[in-house]
Amino acid sequence: MARKESARRRKAPALALFTDFGWGGPYVGQVKAVLLCEAPGLPVIDLLHDAPHFNPRAAGYLLAALAPDLPVGTVLMCVVDPGVGTERRPVMLLADGRWYVGPDNGLLNVIARQARKARWWEITWRPQRLSSTFHGRDLFAPVAAQLALGKPPPGRACDPPAELDSWPADLAEIIYLDPYGNAATGLRAKALAPDAFLRARDRCFQPVRTFADEPPGTAVWYENSNGLAELAINQGSAAASCLLTIGTPVSVEPECA
Amino acid sequence: MARKESARRRKAPALALFTDFGWGGPYVGQVKAVLLCEAPGLPVIDLLHDAPHFNPRAAGYLLAALAPDLPVGTVLMCVVDPGVGTERRPVMLLADGRWYVGPDNGLLNVIARQARKARWWEITWRPQRLSSTFHGRDLFAPVAAQLALGKPPPGRACDPPAELDSWPADLAEIIYLDPYGNAATGLRAKALAPDAFLRARDRCFQPVRTFADEPPGTAVWYENSNGLAELAINQGSAAASCLLTIGTPVSVEPECA
Amino acid sequence: MARKESARRRKAPALALFTDFGWGGPYVGQVKAVLLCEAPGLPVIDLLHDAPHFNPRAAGYLLAALAPDLPVGTVLMCVVDPGVGTERRPVMLLADGRWYVGPDNGLLNVIARQARKARWWEITWRPQRLSSTFHGRDLFAPVAAQLALGKPPPGRACDPPAELDSWPADLAEIIYLDPYGNAATGLRAKALAPDAFLRARDRCFQPVRTFADEPPGTAVWYENSNGLAELAINQGSAAASCLLTIGTPVSVEPECA
Repeated sequence: MARKESARRRKAPALALFTDFGWGGPYVGQVKAVLLCEAPGLPVIDLLHDAPHFNPRAAGYLLAALAPDLPVGTVLMCVVDPGVGTERRPVMLLADGRWYVGPDNGLLNVIARQARKARWWEITWRPQRLSSTFHGRDLFAPVAAQLALGKPPPGRACDPPAELDSWPADLAEIIYLDPYGNAATGLRAKALAPDAFLRARDRCFQPVRTFADEPPGTAVWYENSNGLAELAINQGSAAASCLLTIGTPVSVEPECA
Repeated sequence: MARKESARRRKAPALALFTDFGWGGPYVGQVKAVLLCEAPGLPVIDLLHDAPHFNPRAAGYLLAALAPDLPVGTVLMCVVDPGVGTERRPVMLLADGRWYVGPDNGLLNVIARQARKARWWEITWRPQRLSSTFHGRDLFAPVAAQLALGKPPPGRACDPPAELDSWPADLAEIIYLDPYGNAATGLRAKALAPDAFLRARDRCFQPVRTFADEPPGTAVWYENSNGLAELAINQGSAAASCLLTIGTPVSVEPECA
Repeated sequence: MARKESARRRKAPALALFTDFGWGGPYVGQVKAVLLCEAPGLPVIDLLHDAPHFNPRAAGYLLAALAPDLPVGTVLMCVVDPGVGTERRPVMLLADGRWYVGPDNGLLNVIARQARKARWWEITWRPQRLSSTFHGRDLFAPVAAQLALGKPPPGRACDPPAELDSWPADLAEIIYLDPYGNAATGLRAKALAPDAFLRARDRCFQPVRTFADEPPGTAVWYENSNGLAELAINQGSAAASCLLTIGTPVSVEPECA
């Protein structure tokens, strides 16, 4: 316990950003200007800025797949926040040694569900200027910077979200389309039989080790580099050719008729 | 005076980039390679790389809204430069404690107009290699690096642009479309009555505190996180559904018929 | 020789990334998380992340145009790798004082051809976790970090690719479309007569010093900021209006009929 406390007060190795701000626009730069003022010299990693827009549920499954690769001790600022400016709570979550700062709208639920140990705090600190549309810059970035400097969480311990236990551990939907048109599902590959087939919009995807194993144009699924089952058309776009979007349901089948 | 001089010679806390280079392409990376050589260890912030393309006037109003958030002492390299390679002057502007480096084509005029104190220099230094299409890399980046290191401005004091006084303090046009399709105007919200309506392309936008205050689909305006009046459709794209583009005129009305 | 050896063991001034990962998506961030763990404090430059997708040949000519601007000693991680997970060799190339790490699929051939001195190594080290789809993160990034720290190349000296000598020094094709729609060719401008015309898809491009020299709408070519002959329409998009794509052939002509 004493050891954990002291660990929590150590300076973070990095601060990572996971948002739906988009890569364009001034939002990322403005957050970084705040971080530079509040925590000079801290390495900042752009983990993802095209998280599923306005969709904290899908984004939460993606976050849970990406976060384990970051060094223990990293602070993640996580913002997919369609309810910004309304009454949803701002929270801090300490899960398996990493800090997560963001809105309590489901975005952090999968992280908490999959963690061996998770503790929640509500952010009670408020900045002098709190715009109604950009809590990422005004609230979450300064809080993330404080945690990254090893300071105590600026809030009070709180209960986990009430609905937490009703969230499935895996989600049988498309949760992300990457720039190639590959479609990641919310299903961890290790939770599937390795010879299972996946079906989406009446197209059947056969299991392969890597997309280069089959001829161009073949519909395949494989364990992607983050452990998720991912649908792809070799050297094509699964998103475009199969009309896959965020939220498209996926079913697991023993064979394809 | 002595105090200001010494302040000017201090190392900058950061160098910020404001350009229309686009996030893709090699241009940003090449500028950063120059900055790394000229000022190793200096933090570089990508403030914006999708400034209104080839439109220094609209870009100037956006720059003036974004720059005040950066720490005093920051050096901003500002490049929206359709006349690169022609006779427009390269300049340095010291305004309210921040340096601006870029072409003298209007881009810096709003900054100077809104500043309490502004001084101009013409850049007379020339690099060994000056390409005709990429002064950002060859001229402005090295000059910005020199200023960030606390060195004196490599040029001579000069008059402000002749047309400076004829620029309006606010611009009743769309000046920026963000990745969500929200449309920022060149009007500072504090210059408008809080219950005023805005009209663009025959669509009326009602005033709200934040876009989440109204049902999805409602046309609203609010003070955005940078102080500008911004048009939005809640959970939709104002740009796409109202055909708003950079330069679309906006009118202020007491009520909407 | 002793001097070169010691130079090779010095810490690199920077690590640069040249990939077709796209700017969106989590791939760049995941590579940076690895680099942060393996080589804390090392400056990382995003040189290009929209290299010609799945096209190592075109990408190679672009890489050769961009790399010389980076400081000598820089380590470049280069990943355009349609055959990831198949049998192509992972290699390291030391060419004119810069290191290149990537797949041996042609991507590094132009660098080697144009270099005064080039030495090749095959990467024999393997990480504990080697995904079949993301060698950038799992293999090439850790190797690049080791080289950047000044450690010896983790592999064995090997022969250059067999087909190296059959690659042309210049490529008469479009190799890159920038965000403005300008179309770079694989032809170095210094290899062309300054008054030559270029033809692509039946449109003739006249030589200019810079695109601002002619009225808007004119089809021109000029030496771009990296030394390549580039096709452009002043204040328009050559890619869109002339239907230019990666691989479109370009011919050199003494005059345009």
